[in-house]
Amino acid sequence: MDLNAQSVEAIVRRIVAQMEGAVPADKPIPVGISNRHIHLTRADLDTLFGTGYELTPIKDLSQPGQYACKEQCTIIGPSMRAIEGVRILGPLRKQSQVEISATDSFTLKVKPPVRESGSLAGSAPITIVGPKGVVTLKEGCIIANRHIHMAPEDAAAFGVKDGDTIDVDAFSGTKRTRWFDVQIRVSDQFRLEMHVDTDDANAVGFKNGSTVTVVK
Amino acid sequence: MDLNAQSVEAIVRRIVAQMEGAVPADKPIPVGISNRHIHLTRADLDTLFGTGYELTPIKDLSQPGQYACKEQCTIIGPSMRAIEGVRILGPLRKQSQVEISATDSFTLKVKPPVRESGSLAGSAPITIVGPKGVVTLKEGCIIANRHIHMAPEDAAAFGVKDGDTIDVDAFSGTKRTRWFDVQIRVSDQFRLEMHVDTDDANAVGFKNGSTVTVVK
Repeated sequence: MDLNAQSVEAIVRRIVAQMEGAVPADKPIPVGISNRHIHLTRADLDTLFGTGYELTPIKDLSQPGQYACKEQCTIIGPSMRAIEGVRILGPLRKQSQVEISATDSFTLKVKPPVRESGSLAGSAPITIVGPKGVVTLKEGCIIANRHIHMAPEDAAAFGVKDGDTIDVDAFSGTKRTRWFDVQIRVSDQFRLEMHVDTDDANAVGFKNGSTVTVVK
Repeated sequence: MDLNAQSVEAIVRRIVAQMEGAVPADKPIPVGISNRHIHLTRADLDTLFGTGYELTPIKDLSQPGQYACKEQCTIIGPSMRAIEGVRILGPLRKQSQVEISATDSFTLKVKPPVRESGSLAGSAPITIVGPKGVVTLKEGCIIANRHIHMAPEDAAAFGVKDGDTIDVDAFSGTKRTRWFDVQIRVSDQFRLEMHVDTDDANAVGFKNGSTVTVVK
């Protein structure tokens, strides 16, 4: 561990929070498994589905205000092999983004970096095919990093703050694993949940409903 | 950690081996990534490819005596979705075995246990389709466990013995991860190499040539 002022502060805050008994340090954190998906801008939705098209929400996601849509697209990369039925998530965003797994990246022959959602500078190009048109993003394809959404109360309880990274034990599947460098994302719009992609989930035998615990 | 006579013995032997300087405890162990593959019996090879058919080796594998063959089959499960081009590995074995990833298991809708190669009692059924016939195994489909092949000299150097389990850090990819419960397999026919499946490899961004280190 590289000890600097920032990491020392983070550790001390976690120890103090645990000493204060705000939350048991081994409180299980529920895990949500993110399949490949697409976020779109207004302009790209127009191109793919027609000008003025409105998304059709079919399911609320665990994070408040986020929803899965009926609409799906095909994504395609330099391999010229397509992955069909990629779900669009709403609401619309300021920049279009395609989140895939490393497994998908070999199918498509794209080389997405592991990134926080929304951090797209220099990420991989990808082509999205919709019923009314095609969009080629110069950048926007990423493998989402491992991260935990939490509300400010949870963050206080765990003794962490937005942007911290922690390590968690994934012991509730079939292959015991520790995930390091898990990013903490705090917002009063968030509900406590760790998000991993299908590669991480499948590697450890996780299903929706699996949990992780913070490494002390 | 559950301390009993066996685990204490294993730990002491590792410490002694490290004290004797036989091998640095952080010596990197090369990783081989196992894609889905098939091992066949003589009888099943006859059924799939014709009586008396001989496999065509095209590439030696890292473990001495093991080789990839030109021959491939299609595997299929209760989803009625097929995975094509599944490589056969030689030589022939006493029991046919299909090793897939958890990701594959969702495609096929089979439920293989995580197992050591060859430990097939109660494992999942699967159907193998060849050019001359079809074989349905009542059991034989597994997700291979994480394991490390080593020669007796390596085992002595690391202070482990056949059947031990150790933990390793997978830090040479894109997402830092610790793999627990990695099985040690010792034989004078083995070369030092950790084997993981494509789910584990993709989850951490490993390629052939990636390495792990033993957790002290």
